[in-house]
Amino acid sequence: MSTKPYSEMTKEELVKERAEVAAIYNKYKKSDLNLNMARGKPSVEQLDLSMEMMDVLSSKADLTCDDGTDCRNYGVLDGIHEAKVLLGDMIECHPDNIIIYGNSSLNVMYDTISRSMTHGVMGNTPWCKLDKVKFLCPVPGYDRHFAITEHFGIEMINVPMLPTGPDMDVVENLVENDYAIKGIWCVPKYSNPQGITYSDETVRRFARLKPAAKDFRIYWDNAYGVHHLYDLDQDNLIEILAECKRVGNPDIVYKFCSTSKISFPGSGVAAIATSPNNLVDIKQQLKIQTIGYDKVNQLRHVRYFKDIHGITEHMKKQANLLRPKFEMILERFDEEFKPLGIGNWIKPKGGYFICFEALEGTAKAIVSKNKKAGVVLTPAGATFPYGKDPKDSIIRIAPSYPNMEDLKIALDVFINCVKLISIDKYLHDMGEETVTYGPGAKASK
Amino acid sequence: MSTKPYSEMTKEELVKERAEVAAIYNKYKKSDLNLNMARGKPSVEQLDLSMEMMDVLSSKADLTCDDGTDCRNYGVLDGIHEAKVLLGDMIECHPDNIIIYGNSSLNVMYDTISRSMTHGVMGNTPWCKLDKVKFLCPVPGYDRHFAITEHFGIEMINVPMLPTGPDMDVVENLVENDYAIKGIWCVPKYSNPQGITYSDETVRRFARLKPAAKDFRIYWDNAYGVHHLYDLDQDNLIEILAECKRVGNPDIVYKFCSTSKISFPGSGVAAIATSPNNLVDIKQQLKIQTIGYDKVNQLRHVRYFKDIHGITEHMKKQANLLRPKFEMILERFDEEFKPLGIGNWIKPKGGYFICFEALEGTAKAIVSKNKKAGVVLTPAGATFPYGKDPKDSIIRIAPSYPNMEDLKIALDVFINCVKLISIDKYLHDMGEETVTYGPGAKASK
Repeated sequence: MSTKPYSEMTKEELVKERAEVAAIYNKYKKSDLNLNMARGKPSVEQLDLSMEMMDVLSSKADLTCDDGTDCRNYGVLDGIHEAKVLLGDMIECHPDNIIIYGNSSLNVMYDTISRSMTHGVMGNTPWCKLDKVKFLCPVPGYDRHFAITEHFGIEMINVPMLPTGPDMDVVENLVENDYAIKGIWCVPKYSNPQGITYSDETVRRFARLKPAAKDFRIYWDNAYGVHHLYDLDQDNLIEILAECKRVGNPDIVYKFCSTSKISFPGSGVAAIATSPNNLVDIKQQLKIQTIGYDKVNQLRHVRYFKDIHGITEHMKKQANLLRPKFEMILERFDEEFKPLGIGNWIKPKGGYFICFEALEGTAKAIVSKNKKAGVVLTPAGATFPYGKDPKDSIIRIAPSYPNMEDLKIALDVFINCVKLISIDKYLHDMGEETVTYGPGAKASK
Repeated sequence: MSTKPYSEMTKEELVKERAEVAAIYNKYKKSDLNLNMARGKPSVEQLDLSMEMMDVLSSKADLTCDDGTDCRNYGVLDGIHEAKVLLGDMIECHPDNIIIYGNSSLNVMYDTISRSMTHGVMGNTPWCKLDKVKFLCPVPGYDRHFAITEHFGIEMINVPMLPTGPDMDVVENLVENDYAIKGIWCVPKYSNPQGITYSDETVRRFARLKPAAKDFRIYWDNAYGVHHLYDLDQDNLIEILAECKRVGNPDIVYKFCSTSKISFPGSGVAAIATSPNNLVDIKQQLKIQTIGYDKVNQLRHVRYFKDIHGITEHMKKQANLLRPKFEMILERFDEEFKPLGIGNWIKPKGGYFICFEALEGTAKAIVSKNKKAGVVLTPAGATFPYGKDPKDSIIRIAPSYPNMEDLKIALDVFINCVKLISIDKYLHDMGEETVTYGPGAKASK
């Protein structure tokens, strides 16, 4: 096959290339594959790393926490102190600024929006009483964030992601002039899906926002704060709560985190960190919603990890499993796509995703073509509000779950599909009727 | 001391009796007690009964559930099947009618109300868009139920509890004529605080309600479904979902339960059971709120209890710890109060509470007097919406947490306080100025 950029090929060269690529595709299609690179799920090997957590609280264990509370009984609305210390160290916040929740930070974010709808933020009008509520959504971003805001009828406005984070000129202009804008979704470190970490300047500009709306908050989903791929070559993110406090803007941010991709997804602990004013506001509602979250599981996490050093060491083991997967994909992209000029990607140093930017207008067709060959990817468009990628070019790749062998095959299929659809796009642009791309396409229907 | 009814005593006899009772009170007051009968918390001994649950999922265990799902990873929105079977058997519902949630049924109830506020019930107008939403509250009832409806600005209407459950004449009349009434809080078995189980006729009338509001639901909090005190002498409650389905009213009820007072409060599993239509409605929202609840803890409960028989046997052990506490209180009430004619109570066969109905206008003063002697009770009025007991007579006693020795002392103090305040009420009614009761009272301020 060719190593010449497709854009420089003649129609004849493209047609020849297509025949070769399509032949391989048809081979895959016949091999009855069933592979999945759709969601950021830890692999079985990653889960196995935490299994000893199952032993730390046996029937012989004393389930009393440091302040004498029996973790088995009712009480302690905002979490046991030692869990606040552990998660506080993990996200660089003081334990007093933290509430420990149940098993899911997504649930905490949902509840935060829901509370704002029904009861407002720190005494401001409940959003359900307003004609219009808007959120800024850096794109591409996390589909489940966008699903929450869409569910509540909140209008979402795309903000372009730059290599430094969201385009802060756009953010400042919108937030500081439109009082209907009540929030912005952020995954500030190893962002989903691009793996971008917000630059120091970006964080500083966030902390210094002067929102038109008093109840504007930054929804800082620090999902991948300790999810480095490399021990030494790590991104650094300025701790935003401290920065906001320092510049006299303490209440502007809610910071979310969980241990879902540290211990067990679904059986970890989640937390929010924010200012004392926001904490008071949140607890007013929280004390009505629950008597308390699962303290035994909080204690289990503390007894297992012991301290932040325990988490750091654990995450190195996780990285050892994830790194080869990321590197294999990135190396193959370099080899296969770079010469052909058919796509862009960022090399992340952490997180769970690689974001492939295909030729404009080809993402849906590529995802569809993969599916027909037995490789499931995150739906094209999913990383945009309302599922609409204006350029139809972003594909999120989640390499964590498959083992290396399966991942290699899935990657072969993916690369093949990208080539096929890219060729068809060029042919289409030359006036050729193609089956996979353009108005006559069958695949993308 | 006297065994003659206070109502038949002369002023002189009451004054003499008061001196004796007050002398004992002052002795208690000096003994620096710190006892608590305020909340329905299991005792340490009850919690110890479940400790082997900590061992069933060790690091060597296979955490795969029956359908092959790895419980450690993401997924399964509505709970693992074997947990649905276990809780389904516990509440006499088909597993397909159940969603397993996190650790707290209170949280599930809160979320149910919150969802109705923001998104409405099965396509009906969200409650936050309505001018007025009302709930019926059988009284006395559970304070945390009332706190949820109050938090959302829902107007609460008292409905008297009868020995058969809520007064169904009142319920039918209100529900069938006022479209602003969207729900009723029920604890149908061993009710909080009276220990009443709804009669067959009551349940049948509930199932046959013809609400003015299409989005009216019965909030059936089956908190004490398996919490019997006696092995043979148990109350029976008609299963309401089946009854509703049978009479063509399948969507009218949400049934809530949890294992909080079976395994560990705060570390159990909660569930909702309802009709297929309601389940579809709930899941539309739930899938936005979370990826799933703690499946490992669901599996832990299944592996420990194995089946409904395991729960039954476990609850017998719980009953063995609770029964002597209930019986001691009830026997003392019979001995002490019956001859004096100063109060009423129901003898419950299960649940967590004894409800003492003091002379009208004395509950606050009794609770206050206890507090000053070091015995904390549920605040008077707490069992009514807005904390307002119109007759100021209901006191909820929660005997589960203290050990027998402490409970005996707390009970002595309580009985003494009831006598003291009751005497003062009679003296006051005779025109005497008293320090604990009436306009000149200091204690009740």
